[in-house]
Amino acid sequence: MHRKLKMGMVGGGKDAFIGAIHRNAALMDNLIELVCGCFSVDPEVSQSSGKSYFLPDNRIYNSYQEMFEKEMTLPPNERMDFVTIVTPNKWHFEPAMMALERGFHVVIDKPMTFSLEEAKKLRDKVEETNLVLALTHVYSGYPAVKEAKARIRNGELGKLRRLYVEYTQGWLTERIELLGGNNAGWRTDPKQTGKAGCIGDIGTHAWHLTEYITGLKVKEISADVRTFAEGRLVDDDGAAFLRYENNVSGVLMATQIAAGDANNIRVRVYGDKGGLEWQQMDPNKLIMKWLDRPTEIIHIGNNGYMSDFAVWNTRTPAGHPEGFIEAFANIYRNYALAVMDFKNGKTPDCKTLDFPNVYDGVRGMQFIETMIAAGNDNNNKWQKWID
Amino acid sequence: MHRKLKMGMVGGGKDAFIGAIHRNAALMDNLIELVCGCFSVDPEVSQSSGKSYFLPDNRIYNSYQEMFEKEMTLPPNERMDFVTIVTPNKWHFEPAMMALERGFHVVIDKPMTFSLEEAKKLRDKVEETNLVLALTHVYSGYPAVKEAKARIRNGELGKLRRLYVEYTQGWLTERIELLGGNNAGWRTDPKQTGKAGCIGDIGTHAWHLTEYITGLKVKEISADVRTFAEGRLVDDDGAAFLRYENNVSGVLMATQIAAGDANNIRVRVYGDKGGLEWQQMDPNKLIMKWLDRPTEIIHIGNNGYMSDFAVWNTRTPAGHPEGFIEAFANIYRNYALAVMDFKNGKTPDCKTLDFPNVYDGVRGMQFIETMIAAGNDNNNKWQKWID
Amino acid sequence: MHRKLKMGMVGGGKDAFIGAIHRNAALMDNLIELVCGCFSVDPEVSQSSGKSYFLPDNRIYNSYQEMFEKEMTLPPNERMDFVTIVTPNKWHFEPAMMALERGFHVVIDKPMTFSLEEAKKLRDKVEETNLVLALTHVYSGYPAVKEAKARIRNGELGKLRRLYVEYTQGWLTERIELLGGNNAGWRTDPKQTGKAGCIGDIGTHAWHLTEYITGLKVKEISADVRTFAEGRLVDDDGAAFLRYENNVSGVLMATQIAAGDANNIRVRVYGDKGGLEWQQMDPNKLIMKWLDRPTEIIHIGNNGYMSDFAVWNTRTPAGHPEGFIEAFANIYRNYALAVMDFKNGKTPDCKTLDFPNVYDGVRGMQFIETMIAAGNDNNNKWQKWID
Amino acid sequence: MHRKLKMGMVGGGKDAFIGAIHRNAALMDNLIELVCGCFSVDPEVSQSSGKSYFLPDNRIYNSYQEMFEKEMTLPPNERMDFVTIVTPNKWHFEPAMMALERGFHVVIDKPMTFSLEEAKKLRDKVEETNLVLALTHVYSGYPAVKEAKARIRNGELGKLRRLYVEYTQGWLTERIELLGGNNAGWRTDPKQTGKAGCIGDIGTHAWHLTEYITGLKVKEISADVRTFAEGRLVDDDGAAFLRYENNVSGVLMATQIAAGDANNIRVRVYGDKGGLEWQQMDPNKLIMKWLDRPTEIIHIGNNGYMSDFAVWNTRTPAGHPEGFIEAFANIYRNYALAVMDFKNGKTPDCKTLDFPNVYDGVRGMQFIETMIAAGNDNNNKWQKWID
Repeated sequence: MHRKLKMGMVGGGKDAFIGAIHRNAALMDNLIELVCGCFSVDPEVSQSSGKSYFLPDNRIYNSYQEMFEKEMTLPPNERMDFVTIVTPNKWHFEPAMMALERGFHVVIDKPMTFSLEEAKKLRDKVEETNLVLALTHVYSGYPAVKEAKARIRNGELGKLRRLYVEYTQGWLTERIELLGGNNAGWRTDPKQTGKAGCIGDIGTHAWHLTEYITGLKVKEISADVRTFAEGRLVDDDGAAFLRYENNVSGVLMATQIAAGDANNIRVRVYGDKGGLEWQQMDPNKLIMKWLDRPTEIIHIGNNGYMSDFAVWNTRTPAGHPEGFIEAFANIYRNYALAVMDFKNGKTPDCKTLDFPNVYDGVRGMQFIETMIAAGNDNNNKWQKWID
Repeated sequence: MHRKLKMGMVGGGKDAFIGAIHRNAALMDNLIELVCGCFSVDPEVSQSSGKSYFLPDNRIYNSYQEMFEKEMTLPPNERMDFVTIVTPNKWHFEPAMMALERGFHVVIDKPMTFSLEEAKKLRDKVEETNLVLALTHVYSGYPAVKEAKARIRNGELGKLRRLYVEYTQGWLTERIELLGGNNAGWRTDPKQTGKAGCIGDIGTHAWHLTEYITGLKVKEISADVRTFAEGRLVDDDGAAFLRYENNVSGVLMATQIAAGDANNIRVRVYGDKGGLEWQQMDPNKLIMKWLDRPTEIIHIGNNGYMSDFAVWNTRTPAGHPEGFIEAFANIYRNYALAVMDFKNGKTPDCKTLDFPNVYDGVRGMQFIETMIAAGNDNNNKWQKWID
Repeated sequence: MHRKLKMGMVGGGKDAFIGAIHRNAALMDNLIELVCGCFSVDPEVSQSSGKSYFLPDNRIYNSYQEMFEKEMTLPPNERMDFVTIVTPNKWHFEPAMMALERGFHVVIDKPMTFSLEEAKKLRDKVEETNLVLALTHVYSGYPAVKEAKARIRNGELGKLRRLYVEYTQGWLTERIELLGGNNAGWRTDPKQTGKAGCIGDIGTHAWHLTEYITGLKVKEISADVRTFAEGRLVDDDGAAFLRYENNVSGVLMATQIAAGDANNIRVRVYGDKGGLEWQQMDPNKLIMKWLDRPTEIIHIGNNGYMSDFAVWNTRTPAGHPEGFIEAFANIYRNYALAVMDFKNGKTPDCKTLDFPNVYDGVRGMQFIETMIAAGNDNNNKWQKWID
Repeated sequence: MHRKLKMGMVGGGKDAFIGAIHRNAALMDNLIELVCGCFSVDPEVSQSSGKSYFLPDNRIYNSYQEMFEKEMTLPPNERMDFVTIVTPNKWHFEPAMMALERGFHVVIDKPMTFSLEEAKKLRDKVEETNLVLALTHVYSGYPAVKEAKARIRNGELGKLRRLYVEYTQGWLTERIELLGGNNAGWRTDPKQTGKAGCIGDIGTHAWHLTEYITGLKVKEISADVRTFAEGRLVDDDGAAFLRYENNVSGVLMATQIAAGDANNIRVRVYGDKGGLEWQQMDPNKLIMKWLDRPTEIIHIGNNGYMSDFAVWNTRTPAGHPEGFIEAFANIYRNYALAVMDFKNGKTPDCKTLDFPNVYDGVRGMQFIETMIAAGNDNNNKWQKWID
């Protein structure tokens, strides 16, 4: 094939913040076009959203079941190639499973599913179908994060020892879920979000970032998980000690009641030769710290000293900032190129395959299980990773 | 009409940095599609670029003249609606003029033309045709810059007095134009770039940002314009005192020989009640400073205290950074909505019309003329604005 | 009395970094003069140090025992009023106890003693003698920290919920204690430093800062304490979950193996109305964060909106930075004024008494005991505070 | 001699901000003691100030004339060695001249005198008497500024080309001089401050910093000098293009009406190999920027890679910030050691002599003359340096 990849959407109606981000990211690089969608459980919203996205009437659907059935009947070069699922967690599994069964590739927002069991079923289905599933752990898409990964892999920090990761937000300081009409509703409802609140919503991002950068897996967790807003039905805060492979120790902090904080996700990793630091609210810098020479600031851009791996994920020259949408777009671009390669019978290279996939999704659900178990148990300090 | 706007391109071949940025920005919001282009003076490059953008063979052209002629013959709903011109300055005017004469709307990278005369002709043609021309002074597209403009307009700073603006780069510290194969070649060649180097390339951005934010026009300039790299044929550095309307004083610094600087464009404005500050390398903050209370940091995002005008140009919640491409995309999105309104017989509202236009383009060329005249004259301190 | 307070020193020879800082801080405000000292266990070093401090030969001593005995025999207006003890932890208790028994006031560097038992004995002796003991938990002396304390006390953050405190250093990444001739030697020798390394040296500072700012006491600790440098005899890293009074949760991170970090002590406190943040490496700013309005930066200085309590501890106008030595000097100045008041039969006011004292010293040793117990016990998650 | 140096003061009464800073700085290093002073033109203020500084009654004077006469009659080892003059500019020259004539060394706050003529007379008197005069251009005392000087001298930046220096304050945004009781009174009164306001008060600091760091002298100035606050009798704002030796260009910005700014003095220097940057509001970092490798942050401290010259002026380890008072203290300490050397018949080394002296003072007055002449002349772009 030599054409753009065709995307459908489940969710992402006109007023959904994250759906719009997915479209921005998917379309930016001229590799993907939006061809169809079921944008809401409310048919009126789905229809009016689809129209505002300039879709023809016959490609705007009122249910994802209908969408998958109808799209399957279209000629291969017209039908949707993959579907992006941006619904609340409760409604990730069913459309994803159905899409895979119908032969469509899948992109899902994190956490991958409502439960660990669902996650494992998706993994098995992906393995069975050889279709490609991407999970939008967006922070792994930033060029400076790619550079951090490359430098740790090169051994620049020496043997790793200690890491700190934090993701602090303040938007759930008050019980705004009671006001209605906002993102807080389903995120604090255990029937829609799953057994974790903050831990699932942003804790998974923080955890994933550390495994992505270091290449090390968590083995054990000791956790302090809290609900600060009185009456809230899920956790809104948590902290954990993490024991990784190779005797590396981590501290993870995730909170949604840090009044006044926005989206402060930040990671620091230290080895026996140096340390590095990255934070999303100043995302175009990677800070490298050394034992015996000045701290270095890597300004992201094709500047001659950044790794090929990071340059591949960079669109602008140094000093022209990239942001959240470009990080998202790196996932979509690599995903699209990988799907094209598969369709063309080629094996994608490792730079292209560098996006979070179904295995990250399973581990993310295991992280939630382990954190909640560790947080609930006051008598047992260390909780083994729940496979 | 209810469809996406159709874009053609002049320039923007596969390896051209700024062409790719224009495409990212134009496509991101699902309002515009790329339908044709003449992407290089080299037909082979144009063809291979067009193919890599998934264009059909009959919409990839070997000259812009051919493109305009052929596109005119297509049915209105198929042909290109507007053309984006991203060639070196020397080749802005002719394609722009031809496009306007054939009835196409136009987007041009800055500076608008090679000479002031050309700029005035374009202005007259725009007035004659009622077509829409946008100029990509990208920094005016950042949400925090929009917020700065809104707050000054509200009078929050009181009567304005003093401003500082700077744009410092280091990439022309050495004569890399001699190496070939880079952006420095045409930018330092007076036959392609015009009578100014640094002043035209980035000085115009700095100047435009001040007029955009304050709504005030420069009246007189005293300048010190330099060429530091020996043998270079155009200026690579300049500083100026600016006298604006209403007795406001400015200092402008623009340089391309600030070794180690990337794209540091930064503006500070002070009135008799407060001051504000913005810089591109930390673009999601607007800093507000006051006489008698703490400095405030406005984190861009739909946070309840940002102006509607800035929120309109914001895609992400506070703490999820937006960058250079989103700023560019704000120009394209507003431009597209304005063109759609005109096509539909509606008058766009002022938020939509808030993008740099042909009048900014004429003033930009006047700025270059005035700066170069002021820089060359060592005996006359103040140079009146050259109309 | 109307004269400067007379200071003696135990420790603080010519090459001892922290002794010089104590002298800078004590002398700066023209309230204290150095009159005598035993500056080293090596008589030659003590003599040459004393001479370089311009002391007369008869006030330079070869042992602290000799110093206390001789000074007691001098007329009250000539003899030392207080002694500053800046030796390794092992040699805090004996000179302090002897000084108190001879009627001298005392200043000690932290941690107060080698063991908790010693700390309690000092507390009892202070209570018995009514002499004044100050402990140089220097970070509580910064004006911005005072301001943080005042604002929390005012209720500006609402009900407190969550805090993070960290103190990361990198100077013990390698086993530099094996090189000799540096501060690392005694700090990593359990016979000189006590049962904790990093936890005692900097963990105590981090813990103290939180109790100082919030006015809340820790009740329970869950800890992960590590020794990363192979063969090192004490911990060089630790993290803890802290449960404070009033259901406040904290995370504490202290490490001396964060390669490339200098003296990064930083605290963040969140309540249900707002949050605040301070860090020593940018010490003249207090950052206030809010639910519904912009983040505020309090630039320390007598600026009209800072509390009297903080202004009292401020020497320069806003924008003229104060640093580590001024923070130290605030402890010495308040201490000196308090001692003068007591000598003059007056009760010092609360601004003057606001320096760490013997009770902070006892709690600091309890913190060490609790942390080490919590760190050693892998089966018991929560360790009650050890009184 | 082997004793502390004895300091007297002219000015610096209890409520004078800058007098207190001078005492903090002079006393901190245990090299200087305050022995006498005439602290105010108001005898009552002088007496009560002297008492609060613990001076004996017979060393508190009601006029500087009386002080110099009386001190001369004391035995050499009792009398004042040097006098610090911290009065408004109008009253610098007479006491300084009288002190030199009586054989006392002198420290003066900047600008050195009320007029250039006075400055030259002081210079001649210093040359005649071989006494030592220091001028407290405090910003040259910061360790990071010393490091900047050392690195430029080493040639790390290559051939220098371009510099920017700014000093922006906002405290004179409104005419607070009309309120009385503050520092603004004499500073805006041409009869006390001289022919320049802002240019003399802070413009001289900015200019001095550039000559100090680069070792280059200004040759020509083009200036835009303004008075923004209506009715104010001196300038409160100015900008200048500076032409230095060796074809280096500078831009200087000084303003006291930058509403909300505190004491933002910042300098950037660029050569053909790299650039450096320092700012007082984050004073413990020196930023080094390079053409082809990451930006470096030098964290001030005895860290193994800072020059001896800067380490000599550093008191704390990296990460423990030094501030304004330590910068001041570096001037006093070096001055004291130099005076002691001279008294002991030794020639001070160059690290010790590295403080601003009478020649800096003369050039500072020439800078004021040149700036004001350049600012007043609208027809002549370039003003030659007025010798």
